[in-house]
Amino acid sequence: MSLIVQKFGGTSVADPERIQNVAARVVETAKAGHRVAVVVSAMSGETDRLDTLAEQFGGREENPREYDVLVSTGEQVTIALLSMSIRQLGQPARSFTAAQMGLRTDAAHSRARIERIDREVLMATLEEGAVAVLAGFQGVDAEGNITTLGRGGSDTSAVAVAAAIEADVCEIYTDVDGVFTADPRVVPAARKLERISYDEMIEMASLGAKVLQIRSVRFAMRYDVPIHVRSSFHKGEGTWVVPEEEAMEGLVVSGVSFNKKEAKIRVRGVRDVPGVAARIFTPLSDVGIVVDVIIQNLSQDGATDLTFTVPRSDYARALQISQQSGESVGAEAVDGDDEIAKVSIVGLGMKDHAGVASRMFSVLADEGINIQLITTSEIKVSVVIEEKYAELAVRALHAAFVETGAAEPQAE
Amino acid sequence: MSLIVQKFGGTSVADPERIQNVAARVVETAKAGHRVAVVVSAMSGETDRLDTLAEQFGGREENPREYDVLVSTGEQVTIALLSMSIRQLGQPARSFTAAQMGLRTDAAHSRARIERIDREVLMATLEEGAVAVLAGFQGVDAEGNITTLGRGGSDTSAVAVAAAIEADVCEIYTDVDGVFTADPRVVPAARKLERISYDEMIEMASLGAKVLQIRSVRFAMRYDVPIHVRSSFHKGEGTWVVPEEEAMEGLVVSGVSFNKKEAKIRVRGVRDVPGVAARIFTPLSDVGIVVDVIIQNLSQDGATDLTFTVPRSDYARALQISQQSGESVGAEAVDGDDEIAKVSIVGLGMKDHAGVASRMFSVLADEGINIQLITTSEIKVSVVIEEKYAELAVRALHAAFVETGAAEPQAE
Repeated sequence: MSLIVQKFGGTSVADPERIQNVAARVVETAKAGHRVAVVVSAMSGETDRLDTLAEQFGGREENPREYDVLVSTGEQVTIALLSMSIRQLGQPARSFTAAQMGLRTDAAHSRARIERIDREVLMATLEEGAVAVLAGFQGVDAEGNITTLGRGGSDTSAVAVAAAIEADVCEIYTDVDGVFTADPRVVPAARKLERISYDEMIEMASLGAKVLQIRSVRFAMRYDVPIHVRSSFHKGEGTWVVPEEEAMEGLVVSGVSFNKKEAKIRVRGVRDVPGVAARIFTPLSDVGIVVDVIIQNLSQDGATDLTFTVPRSDYARALQISQQSGESVGAEAVDGDDEIAKVSIVGLGMKDHAGVASRMFSVLADEGINIQLITTSEIKVSVVIEEKYAELAVRALHAAFVETGAAEPQAE
Repeated sequence: MSLIVQKFGGTSVADPERIQNVAARVVETAKAGHRVAVVVSAMSGETDRLDTLAEQFGGREENPREYDVLVSTGEQVTIALLSMSIRQLGQPARSFTAAQMGLRTDAAHSRARIERIDREVLMATLEEGAVAVLAGFQGVDAEGNITTLGRGGSDTSAVAVAAAIEADVCEIYTDVDGVFTADPRVVPAARKLERISYDEMIEMASLGAKVLQIRSVRFAMRYDVPIHVRSSFHKGEGTWVVPEEEAMEGLVVSGVSFNKKEAKIRVRGVRDVPGVAARIFTPLSDVGIVVDVIIQNLSQDGATDLTFTVPRSDYARALQISQQSGESVGAEAVDGDDEIAKVSIVGLGMKDHAGVASRMFSVLADEGINIQLITTSEIKVSVVIEEKYAELAVRALHAAFVETGAAEPQAE
């Protein structure tokens, strides 16, 4: 008998029929002799409906506390309906709001962090043989105010519950079969990974792979919760997200990803003196623009270029702000480009294999693709290139690193 | 400065525009220097929408606990939106679910009774100068399970809150101007009462007047909470529901009401021995049929007739059950009639004035209306007559008792 947490997102519970499908899956697991806690999101469309209502009255920005009171009703509806559906199949079930399971967070509305969960109340229900049906996304702060974890927060709820009850696995049900070495729509040869490490998953999530919320993976890593990303449509194995020592499939590169949602801004010829970077980036963060890649070349003659990327949706505003800041620090010019793509390779194997980055550059050069920016971490290399080459680059890198399996990369 | 509880029902908060109207009214009261707690229902239509969802999974009957989890989201949405709307008008406001205000009930799902409210948490908010926006209809039991008070329970929530914080008044906003001496659609001469006693209001509610839920009036009477029933469309005074000693307008009869939603069943020629009534009525209560008026004549030759009324919607079933029971107790015959109406006069003055009942019978006789059944209480006389005479009877009784003012009734 295992202790299993199952998480189903909004599209899996979008209507009564799909809720019945989820119930059937849960009951099957319970009847197989396991103890099951299910974490669910709001029925898809529901959060948008509530959001539209809130917009009539100033929305989330003006009313952070009341907005969370409002949108948390979405998950409360789902837990009630799913509990009913499970009970209809003859399996005892009991729903829990965040308050009822003591899911305590800090007081940061709309982006709260989980602090603790009342393990006892959940275990009492599971030990009675009932399925515990839990509202994802929501929490309560120390004062009893309702909080929410931010969109996609149900993944984090599920992992936190799994950690609290020391579950054997946290199953995340999605509309894909698992985590792939690349987007199968772009790379037909992409294959599903059997296992991936927490670190790799975090890098891939930060690069735009949407199967898991990045915060939930960090949480799982910290509390050693094995995650199983699997399909809600069939019963085959998906991808296990596990500690590094269990993750090795012998691949140097586990995944190739790309992201077309960024834009590039270049501040040319700024004096290389302390405080310049702060004067460029502070005005951007003041208006909530998140800067991703930042590159500063070594200075020549006391001047340097500063290049960075921002979300493409913020491009126009970021360019305007940067032009003002550039002027105030005496930059020669500020320009930008929103037809770029970021292409990345991710793999634990890079730690032990020299030359992965330079081989990546060779592969791109062989395809005639010019590299504009480069950033690296211990297990990732990202390059910024012209947008139109994104798919070509991904396919070439996938062929060179993944399809050749675990082969030692060529020497430099 | 007064401490005021205001209650708005589902039609008053049916859409964003109406919520804004309610917010304006609340803010006006607060700006006038009063402390305000507002109790609201779900937006109209919302409970039905949730009910329809629940029906897919066995509904309330099969899932009393989860049904309450589901439908209580309706009020939670309203408190969030109304708080936002009040804040938009520059007035601080803070919403409270039942759990947050410690509105504790017993564990009877869908018909829970209020046991206590956390006075301190509400007073702290009111003393800060913020409006407390409270979810009606819902509660939590001692285990933290969500309960509901039954449809119309928001009236009771409002009165309970008013009692807990010792409010100066509990204002119930409705789509009528107050409590009338008769239904103005039937009796053009009907007039709004300035004041009515709790007892009279309870009788009138039990007779079908829909302005207040009967349980809320009992609660108000027990805790001496003055209720002000008033229009949500304009600011004129409505009707005050108050203790008997403050209620007297000098009227013998305060109201004339009628009810066409009942049917009559007669069990003829049953032996007048102990246990017969139980064998007739137990099978009815076993299936949840509520019997209203019961009449048993004195027996002649050891046999008697037993006549009673049931809700018209239960008539067919009640007749069938009664025919079986009648057979088993050796009744001569069981028949019934669903074309009846109950017409009642209500008034505290009856306590001190003899002959009100017989004058009522004379008034009806003068109109050629035959009386089928009679029941009386200390402050009420009800008669059952042919349905087609209902409006005629109401108008005649209103003319005789109300339009003549406080005149002493004719001697018998």
